[in-house]
Amino acid sequence: MKCAIIAVGTEVVSGDIVNTNAPYIANVLKPYGIRTVLQMAVEDTEKDIIKAVKRGLKKAELVITTGGLGPTYDDITKKAVARVLERELVRDEYSVEMLNLYFRRAEKKMTESNLSQCYFPKGSRVIQNPNGTAPASITHTKKGTVMMLPGPPVEVSALLKTEDIQNYLESLKTEEIMETTIKFFGIGESHLEELLSDYMKKEDNLILAPYAKTGEVQLKITAKGKTHEQAKELTDSLKEKLYEIVGEYIYAEGNQSLEEVLLASLLENRQTLVTAESCTGGLIGEMMTAIPGSSEVYAGGVVTYSNQLKMRLVSVSEETLAEYGAVSKGTACEMAEGARKNLGGDIGISVTGIAGPGGGTDEKPVGLVYIGVSTREKTDAYRFHFVGNREKVRTLSAKNALHLALQASKQLGKIEK
Amino acid sequence: MKCAIIAVGTEVVSGDIVNTNAPYIANVLKPYGIRTVLQMAVEDTEKDIIKAVKRGLKKAELVITTGGLGPTYDDITKKAVARVLERELVRDEYSVEMLNLYFRRAEKKMTESNLSQCYFPKGSRVIQNPNGTAPASITHTKKGTVMMLPGPPVEVSALLKTEDIQNYLESLKTEEIMETTIKFFGIGESHLEELLSDYMKKEDNLILAPYAKTGEVQLKITAKGKTHEQAKELTDSLKEKLYEIVGEYIYAEGNQSLEEVLLASLLENRQTLVTAESCTGGLIGEMMTAIPGSSEVYAGGVVTYSNQLKMRLVSVSEETLAEYGAVSKGTACEMAEGARKNLGGDIGISVTGIAGPGGGTDEKPVGLVYIGVSTREKTDAYRFHFVGNREKVRTLSAKNALHLALQASKQLGKIEK
Repeated sequence: MKCAIIAVGTEVVSGDIVNTNAPYIANVLKPYGIRTVLQMAVEDTEKDIIKAVKRGLKKAELVITTGGLGPTYDDITKKAVARVLERELVRDEYSVEMLNLYFRRAEKKMTESNLSQCYFPKGSRVIQNPNGTAPASITHTKKGTVMMLPGPPVEVSALLKTEDIQNYLESLKTEEIMETTIKFFGIGESHLEELLSDYMKKEDNLILAPYAKTGEVQLKITAKGKTHEQAKELTDSLKEKLYEIVGEYIYAEGNQSLEEVLLASLLENRQTLVTAESCTGGLIGEMMTAIPGSSEVYAGGVVTYSNQLKMRLVSVSEETLAEYGAVSKGTACEMAEGARKNLGGDIGISVTGIAGPGGGTDEKPVGLVYIGVSTREKTDAYRFHFVGNREKVRTLSAKNALHLALQASKQLGKIEK
Repeated sequence: MKCAIIAVGTEVVSGDIVNTNAPYIANVLKPYGIRTVLQMAVEDTEKDIIKAVKRGLKKAELVITTGGLGPTYDDITKKAVARVLERELVRDEYSVEMLNLYFRRAEKKMTESNLSQCYFPKGSRVIQNPNGTAPASITHTKKGTVMMLPGPPVEVSALLKTEDIQNYLESLKTEEIMETTIKFFGIGESHLEELLSDYMKKEDNLILAPYAKTGEVQLKITAKGKTHEQAKELTDSLKEKLYEIVGEYIYAEGNQSLEEVLLASLLENRQTLVTAESCTGGLIGEMMTAIPGSSEVYAGGVVTYSNQLKMRLVSVSEETLAEYGAVSKGTACEMAEGARKNLGGDIGISVTGIAGPGGGTDEKPVGLVYIGVSTREKTDAYRFHFVGNREKVRTLSAKNALHLALQASKQLGKIEK
């Protein structure tokens, strides 16, 4: 099946925002055997939207629009789509109810214009929006199918994960496609490709696509078969090979993030984690607590940006700071140990470094980072030299700290068993 | 003048890469008075490219294509464009020379297929590529103008900066355009539009475009005039009105983020900030420290996810926790004050709430968040009820905390003056 994705909104066409919705949606569709063959972005005039939707329906059986479902005067996607599909717009009473509820819960006043969000082409399936007020809809007609989604990416992703839309996409499937992601840490993309060169050749029923993402590499395996078993067999035999050749770098299968894998390991081993962050400034805590349920294993942490707070909160000694400086192996060790003892946790991790762009010297250049790990068995710190801008140095620091915490969690777990 | 941007290539349409070229180009064109009114991404088949270019020329005087200029078999943009413009492809001898030079310098062997990069629609202006082997071209015809650029973003940006293309764009300028962004906090998009309804009508020489982004609204003002002064006058008189009507919600002009504005205010008033985060788990610290130079004003913070750490690190009393719970006004106040006193800062902010998806009760539902602010003048906490998923609740919490800190910083600054 083919799909055309149309973004509606001057902010997209004019380049004010990057259209990340289109690639996101295209990737969600792939496992269902739906190929995106056209992307468009048009201004929010009825004429432009009508032309784009018509062009989309010529080229593909499914047209997905994003944007233009809001309550403001320039939100006219539904009007335009209704015109193309020759269906009148009718009010969906359940949506009205939900909207009323939303405004009551948010303690805000609903305006008349908000009600416009509750009108859909007649016969549409309406899907409530978990992250916003504009519901989505799917309209089947002889001319083709149009799915209308709102514009904000957080709403798009939440809607595509709803049971309604998942079931709909499932119903479109014609062949079995199995996608598996294997996640690697501590190995570069080109090195991985080299080691796997025998398997990287593109075959139609087994495709390996590596994708590098700050500090880690994901390998997406797409296996196709007439039956699920066929696809699974292809995948499994390839996975076996992967574990043989590059198993030491694999930290997860599937879509689990590094922090989720760490959380699972901490839970399994009944351990708690505490953090002392300097150059990452709270990023590790933020990544851990972004996962629901993290409070079970992540007690908290400190952001000791100043030397004074390093001493006060995690007992770094004045001598260490004076002799070796804040960015040093000694400080990293004391921060990790101090966090573990003062905050009370099984594993303490610390990060201290120079994220840049300023603050670097010949001896301690931008990108120099020490990561400390402390358990009751051992306290140690590791030196890294990351290349990149402030954001990249901070992200790489946080990810390596999480990876070291994961190793410590597994090791400590083993000792206890 | 209007422009349509067409990306050629399966990797873009299928979502394997995000199309950052289109917004980049659209933004380069703006100051020359060129408005992008259509974006498309099509697969690299001659038929699809022809259709897209035809559609682009119907909608705009200038069509810019990206991609499909390489030496491989699926690079057929030039063939398709030549067909639409009814021009034959002719060899550009200077490009052949440059290509030979390139291969000699790179000590690589040139293949026959590389020569295909030296063919252009007859009468084209050819622009050599500073970052790659495929030259760009501009072809004027009665049907319109087509500029063909290669696909890689580093080549696109280098080409757009060449004197040839800069001069060409300069020659298209007919009017002066001035863009200004005003940023609002604490007011919704629809409410803002309502208050500004008199000014929202689309006029050709003064366009207001609101854009909502988790918790804040940006208003982009585009003013046009024959001279720069004219455009500036239009902008200034509108801005005056904005400050009159909705000035209390304005926190910045231009592209500064909330945290950058806060940082600037703290610097100006020589204040330091400390944080105590529960449900945001380090997000505020992360946002503050993402800005280079933040160590001047952000001393650090604590992530007190557990009750125990709330007591130990920021001196929340056991009684308050027992009587009112961790998510309460009292706890938020004590956290903010405790952070300010224990960590040593002029302004202490705290966040405690239920980010979800679990942990909500009838009395304290998911999304309930208290934000505390403490200065030596006053300690208070504010109740919020955010609607959305975990990520949204956390982001809204952090942004509102930053906004409250900004208000406290200004107020404290005033008192001291």
